Amino acid sequence: MASTDHTLQVDAHGRLKHFLTIDGLERELLINILDTAESFAGVGERAVKKVPLLRGKTIVNLFFEPSTRTRTTFELAAKRLSADVLNINASTSSTTKGESLLDTLRTLEAMHCDMFVVRHAQSGAAHFIARHAAPHISVINGGDGRHAHPTQAMLDMFTIRRHKGEFASLKVAIVGDVSHSRVARSQIHALVTLGAAEVRIVAPRTLVPPGLERLGVSVHHDLRQGIANADVVILLRLQNERMRGALLPSSHEYFQYYGVTEEKLAAADPDAIVMHPGPLNRGVEIDSDVADGARSVILRQVGYGIAIRMAVMSMAIGSHAAAEREGG
Amino acid sequence: MASTDHTLQVDAHGRLKHFLTIDGLERELLINILDTAESFAGVGERAVKKVPLLRGKTIVNLFFEPSTRTRTTFELAAKRLSADVLNINASTSSTTKGESLLDTLRTLEAMHCDMFVVRHAQSGAAHFIARHAAPHISVINGGDGRHAHPTQAMLDMFTIRRHKGEFASLKVAIVGDVSHSRVARSQIHALVTLGAAEVRIVAPRTLVPPGLERLGVSVHHDLRQGIANADVVILLRLQNERMRGALLPSSHEYFQYYGVTEEKLAAADPDAIVMHPGPLNRGVEIDSDVADGARSVILRQVGYGIAIRMAVMSMAIGSHAAAEREGG
Amino acid sequence: MASTDHTLQVDAHGRLKHFLTIDGLERELLINILDTAESFAGVGERAVKKVPLLRGKTIVNLFFEPSTRTRTTFELAAKRLSADVLNINASTSSTTKGESLLDTLRTLEAMHCDMFVVRHAQSGAAHFIARHAAPHISVINGGDGRHAHPTQAMLDMFTIRRHKGEFASLKVAIVGDVSHSRVARSQIHALVTLGAAEVRIVAPRTLVPPGLERLGVSVHHDLRQGIANADVVILLRLQNERMRGALLPSSHEYFQYYGVTEEKLAAADPDAIVMHPGPLNRGVEIDSDVADGARSVILRQVGYGIAIRMAVMSMAIGSHAAAEREGG
Repeated sequence: MASTDHTLQVDAHGRLKHFLTIDGLERELLINILDTAESFAGVGERAVKKVPLLRGKTIVNLFFEPSTRTRTTFELAAKRLSADVLNINASTSSTTKGESLLDTLRTLEAMHCDMFVVRHAQSGAAHFIARHAAPHISVINGGDGRHAHPTQAMLDMFTIRRHKGEFASLKVAIVGDVSHSRVARSQIHALVTLGAAEVRIVAPRTLVPPGLERLGVSVHHDLRQGIANADVVILLRLQNERMRGALLPSSHEYFQYYGVTEEKLAAADPDAIVMHPGPLNRGVEIDSDVADGARSVILRQVGYGIAIRMAVMSMAIGSHAAAEREGG
Repeated sequence: MASTDHTLQVDAHGRLKHFLTIDGLERELLINILDTAESFAGVGERAVKKVPLLRGKTIVNLFFEPSTRTRTTFELAAKRLSADVLNINASTSSTTKGESLLDTLRTLEAMHCDMFVVRHAQSGAAHFIARHAAPHISVINGGDGRHAHPTQAMLDMFTIRRHKGEFASLKVAIVGDVSHSRVARSQIHALVTLGAAEVRIVAPRTLVPPGLERLGVSVHHDLRQGIANADVVILLRLQNERMRGALLPSSHEYFQYYGVTEEKLAAADPDAIVMHPGPLNRGVEIDSDVADGARSVILRQVGYGIAIRMAVMSMAIGSHAAAEREGG
Repeated sequence: MASTDHTLQVDAHGRLKHFLTIDGLERELLINILDTAESFAGVGERAVKKVPLLRGKTIVNLFFEPSTRTRTTFELAAKRLSADVLNINASTSSTTKGESLLDTLRTLEAMHCDMFVVRHAQSGAAHFIARHAAPHISVINGGDGRHAHPTQAMLDMFTIRRHKGEFASLKVAIVGDVSHSRVARSQIHALVTLGAAEVRIVAPRTLVPPGLERLGVSVHHDLRQGIANADVVILLRLQNERMRGALLPSSHEYFQYYGVTEEKLAAADPDAIVMHPGPLNRGVEIDSDVADGARSVILRQVGYGIAIRMAVMSMAIGSHAAAEREGG
């Protein structure tokens, strides 16, 4: 049960230290994150969208790969927790002066920062940083290569629980470019851990990594068959910018076979919800009728994303504060 | 009276919802903005330059065209109102991933942002965004193409009222490249609405758009004649970067005929004030003796600009809050 | 005693107005800065890393040359003093519209900013700005050309005092590219003013500016001889990016003669501390064994840097506030 990832992410009292991957985390902790996010979900609707939980803490957005959308949600979550935020575009900063990643970390630690939100094009970068960070630092993975994007996966779980209730009865289909998606792996781990009745992957053969079935999912190459009677249909973004070589004939052809239209969606449960991490490629993986339709919860996911990030940030910094009080 | 612009900008109780253009706004509302700005004008001189009016609100600077100066004034105004500010350089962000403008808007709305300050190279962009924004969002036009720059125009009105008193007795000359100026159109609408005695446009034939007289102004091509006895001389910036083709022989020749020098300024009223939106092209539209002279109020305009932006921001967010309390 | 620099930086009551260079400042003021920093040194270790001293003040990071590390430390210092911070990348802003530096300054002053932290590639830029700034503005030099980097030098003095005590008994060696270093000149002035027993410069002939001895230092070209019995060894970064022409054969050869290894460090006092301003060029001016060794205080310098910047910022803004209260 206690994998390396588990030990790295969770302290001896079961509290979240870092949030790097869903893989290896226990069901109880995932439920704890969802419940904590529930308590923050209303903050965005208040007149004063702020709680003083992390006042006087310093959170660094350490982005080695630009992503305005992800950076924005973490920045908003931090500000609504009353933390101070530093945005560091690491791709253009001191690394250009030849400084090593570890020296950059040591320097930020010495400035008494409390948390690094790390975005990196290389798989494993957030783990590396967490493994080498000082004890008072929490690391949140904001997406690393094709590996993981755990806050995105948890906001998806939050969305599913809010709209469809308990996981045990749910059939969930994940549709699209699983091979290049950091989100898909995190989603699969979360759904399996939370006990979803069925998790199905729907994708062309060229976009499915080998051995996926070992994670506890079924693999389908026909869209209608894959989403048949599904309660939740999660679409992935076609990562055009991350694909190398000609795995796909054209985005037009992709739409023809895997683009979700109202007509194809008829195969799913009539009360199914449709999810997408954004930004949308309308007319590629999703038809506008579906994106803007009654079953789409895509925009709600965005708001839930702030609540999940507030939850993970406050839990991780809180566990360090607790450890320090206990003399650890 | 109730033009489309009016209906879009003002709610049923006459309160400012969005601030997109001066065109169509009533005199009473403009006076209200000036009076509100008056109450903020002292904040910049206090030891603690902050009021808690917009604490816990999120204001997004959504700049599709870079403008450090305009972004800075809005950011300062928001911070002095205690709001949280997100700066989004939209020209380099998710639009590069192919996301549509509307999807970007929907995403920011779903993050429970309260206000978008929009800067865009295309005329009508701020209107488009306001027309499609969710009811809880206020949109402020920070300059769109050649169309409008209403906060700049209102800070000019604030400057005139502070230094010259009531509009009814004033002769105002607007000198320069009216054709390419988003400020000039906004200024003309404001001056006419506020009842200035006389509004004159002074520019070379190639830089005056046709039909300008219909707005209630007189057009002059000779500088001395145009500013004769004027109480207020507003200079426009020569928008070199926005001009296409050879409308002007050279900036040297422009200075010779339309550059305002102390010698030419003698034609205006001895108590005339000289205004300019900045940044200055010294030696092109204005001589340094005039820019730094006793009649120049150019730097005071900058400080008034913060007060006007604080006024518009607090009024627009306040009207949404009021509408929500009333169940609208 | 009252040099031009002194008069510019210190008011009639001996209070710090601007912080531009160590040159010309009196011992008492330097001690005052160190003592004030001492009072801030604990803030970074508190649960709430904030004091309300500069609440409602506006501090502008005006960077004409990019430097993420320096910008970050000033931004953090300002935020921990509760000030509002504006980051202006002046190399890409209105200067591209042809605005003069003075007009940019006047504009920021008119926005009621309180402090400019200036970083510029040209020596003397911060002095120029301080000389032309309005009376209510404080200017902090964040590094100008090869001239000065006084907050870096003061954090070095803070480090020395914390770890080695009084200056009068100390032998300090500064090793490296003195010729291209803005830090070295500031360090020499500070050490001489604070009364260090001995200040030695250790560098190849091509990297020592002529006439350095007049500042009160000895010059050495042999590393072991230069650091013999030294209590403090300060390494300079090899400014590869600032060197023109072939002053050095190769960084490999530099390491052979001037790179500090544990073996060479044996010549220094057994309790010597090793300092470096960062970012490190490991294997060029410093060996990793030394950088990460027991005598290295390099990372502590970073934390002290926040305290020194908090000290200088609060002193400079405080002196303006005091002057205003006195009617000055």
